[in-house]
Amino acid sequence: MTQLIKPASPGGFRDYLPEVMIPKQEILGQIRKTFESFGFQPLETHAVELSSVLGTDQDTFNMEVFNLQTSGQTLTLRFDLTVPLSRVIAANPLLLKPFKRYQLGPVWRAEKPQAGRFREFLQFDADIVGSDSIIADTEIVLLMYQAMVNLGLTRFVIRFNNRKILNGLPQACDFDPTKAPSVFRILDKLEKIGWEEVQKELQRLPDNQYDDSAPALSQQACDLIGSFLEISQSTQPIPMLESFFAQSEIAREGINECRQIIAYLNALKIPTNNWQLDLSVARGLGYYTGPVFETTLLDIPEIGSVFSGGRFDELVMRFTGQKMPAVGASVGVDRLMAALEQLGSIEKKRTLTKAMILSIGQELEGTSLALAQSLRKRGVNTEVYLGKDSSLGAQIGQAAKQEIPFVIIIGQDEVEQGLFRLKDMEQRTEEALTIEDLLDKLT
Amino acid sequence: MTQLIKPASPGGFRDYLPEVMIPKQEILGQIRKTFESFGFQPLETHAVELSSVLGTDQDTFNMEVFNLQTSGQTLTLRFDLTVPLSRVIAANPLLLKPFKRYQLGPVWRAEKPQAGRFREFLQFDADIVGSDSIIADTEIVLLMYQAMVNLGLTRFVIRFNNRKILNGLPQACDFDPTKAPSVFRILDKLEKIGWEEVQKELQRLPDNQYDDSAPALSQQACDLIGSFLEISQSTQPIPMLESFFAQSEIAREGINECRQIIAYLNALKIPTNNWQLDLSVARGLGYYTGPVFETTLLDIPEIGSVFSGGRFDELVMRFTGQKMPAVGASVGVDRLMAALEQLGSIEKKRTLTKAMILSIGQELEGTSLALAQSLRKRGVNTEVYLGKDSSLGAQIGQAAKQEIPFVIIIGQDEVEQGLFRLKDMEQRTEEALTIEDLLDKLT
Repeated sequence: MTQLIKPASPGGFRDYLPEVMIPKQEILGQIRKTFESFGFQPLETHAVELSSVLGTDQDTFNMEVFNLQTSGQTLTLRFDLTVPLSRVIAANPLLLKPFKRYQLGPVWRAEKPQAGRFREFLQFDADIVGSDSIIADTEIVLLMYQAMVNLGLTRFVIRFNNRKILNGLPQACDFDPTKAPSVFRILDKLEKIGWEEVQKELQRLPDNQYDDSAPALSQQACDLIGSFLEISQSTQPIPMLESFFAQSEIAREGINECRQIIAYLNALKIPTNNWQLDLSVARGLGYYTGPVFETTLLDIPEIGSVFSGGRFDELVMRFTGQKMPAVGASVGVDRLMAALEQLGSIEKKRTLTKAMILSIGQELEGTSLALAQSLRKRGVNTEVYLGKDSSLGAQIGQAAKQEIPFVIIIGQDEVEQGLFRLKDMEQRTEEALTIEDLLDKLT
Repeated sequence: MTQLIKPASPGGFRDYLPEVMIPKQEILGQIRKTFESFGFQPLETHAVELSSVLGTDQDTFNMEVFNLQTSGQTLTLRFDLTVPLSRVIAANPLLLKPFKRYQLGPVWRAEKPQAGRFREFLQFDADIVGSDSIIADTEIVLLMYQAMVNLGLTRFVIRFNNRKILNGLPQACDFDPTKAPSVFRILDKLEKIGWEEVQKELQRLPDNQYDDSAPALSQQACDLIGSFLEISQSTQPIPMLESFFAQSEIAREGINECRQIIAYLNALKIPTNNWQLDLSVARGLGYYTGPVFETTLLDIPEIGSVFSGGRFDELVMRFTGQKMPAVGASVGVDRLMAALEQLGSIEKKRTLTKAMILSIGQELEGTSLALAQSLRKRGVNTEVYLGKDSSLGAQIGQAAKQEIPFVIIIGQDEVEQGLFRLKDMEQRTEEALTIEDLLDKLT
């Protein structure tokens, strides 16, 4: 006999069994409804892209990816849904703009598998392409807020910042602008590791001459960054930022954008505990150019942001040479699911089936199937018992294990009288009904 | 300046823009509803599998696949959703059985790209694992029938056969059983190329000593196969099959299964023009062991089967060493979409948005956003105009191009009176409404 194969999953990959998929589908349906309520339209792009399109042949976005073994063009599994969107925009210049699309799909990252980190995960994105209006950025914040609320969540905060403000930091804090990316990456950890640790990392010397991740900032630069970050705590951050960045035009542009977003959120009475200006938010991805957003769950902040995004006005430019304003955000579906599971707010559900048809005695399969047809046509999710053990006890036991709320028992006597026995599995009640009454009862 | 990148898709891969995605989502939603009405539950498995699990390291299923460039374990993109299901069954022995699951997801095949053939495509599968009852097979045929009907299709035929009957052919037609796979592959082409061509291929001699795809059957074997295939045309095929396969126990088992499925379909009054026993149906995939099913659209048969499946009792055995009965079918979503497009039964739709809010004059953005919030909360899909040109003509033009049915115009005068102008874009009517009347009108 041939060798048995191990039914294993590769590290970093997981399945979703029905009891988790059922609530997950509900959550995805709810997010989709929210996205559609804001006027986003569905788009689907292929999962496999040319490496040149993703920039992974040049390491443009510093991403660990999966390449395919192909001869000819190098093909890569997408690492997000944003770069593929920028390709679609460039490849379809006649698309009406502003173009608002949502997309749900898996993305892949070839990171080392570790607890809670997956190499294949679902993202659910919404983006507005072709508008540089601050209203578009505000709409994305509103979308994030409303999507969370519609999921029944209240204990979350949308933390936002602006890359333009961060881009003013080297000048205002007197450090070399080439160190900016590594400084931003360290600032991003503030919420997680605290200022003491951040400060240590900012001052760390390179391990060797090739180590450009250690910014080695001076004490003075660090102190200035510290006072910059403290502005987040102020109730009037905008004037403080303006004086901090008096010399930097680019930062003042970003400050002005923050001011406008804050004004709209206040005018719309979005609860102030659900959003905050947080000057440490940088977002890792290199393509953001303006506002950046993150969403933290207050009861489980350590899981990281579950809904994040920002403005990326220069992503389409890689293909066209011209700026194309764009802003959006992405739900990390698997991380959100993991968080909701940990918070106990996912109700596992074994089945979407409402009724199972059981039969006692021989030759009643045709009657079962015909009744199933009638129920299904009326929109009642119905199963026919398919188990081997034909005793009534075994049949009812199967329905109970599957947590199906109703069973319909077909017996020879009842069939002759034109009746069906309906058993409510939870109430433990039973009644004999005509087909019409049965259909009415279950629909 | 850096070199511009070409925003290209690799050959064999395609995007779905919103106007096609909107009807596609409707179709997928409809199929999902049908699957759920039959008591199937959602499952999601990872797209990347160990090559050993897919059998692609041993070429078990004769599939051209995409392998990933990884060190260590060889990883492969799944080529269907059935082999991953068999892994889930083997890896989760405690799953309640019969286990009925549906799954929607992309699969990949590294075939040469050609017109109408994609290397990444969506499959939508429903399978019953753990029942060897012929009722399970019948339920799959009923599911296929009902799914097609629920999509509004009537001109289709579900053609079915049984691998056990085909497995009796070598004995009954006197040819070497090792030639069976290539004979079945040729029979599968009967509908497409006709008996003359099939006969030629059956008799073709090998091109060289390594060519095992040429069965080189004798004239006598061919004639016997011809008379076997003719039985499909008979109104009473079962007795004819019984006498044809009088000597073959395995074939008689298959004939008996066909008899039972036919009896149920007749008893349930499934229209006889929607199904037929077709003895040429073999299905390419090597894992089928009993009934096999295909669905042909009568007005576009050349596109091939859009919904196919069969029984595969030995697939889980690769992992466990033990048979696990299973039967199911799979919608080829992209092929179905292509067929419906060609038949003109897809209505392209540009938007799911019901209303766009326009504003005349300055400082009304806050009012626009607040109104949008109210409408969205009431379930009205609403956009706020985000274009650059603020003239009313440009704003209305944008809504018209996007085919949005209603626009709401906010002007300073109306705001002062507490009114909004609602314009029906199709009827070309306009009225001034209070916020309450507006909400009532649009919900």
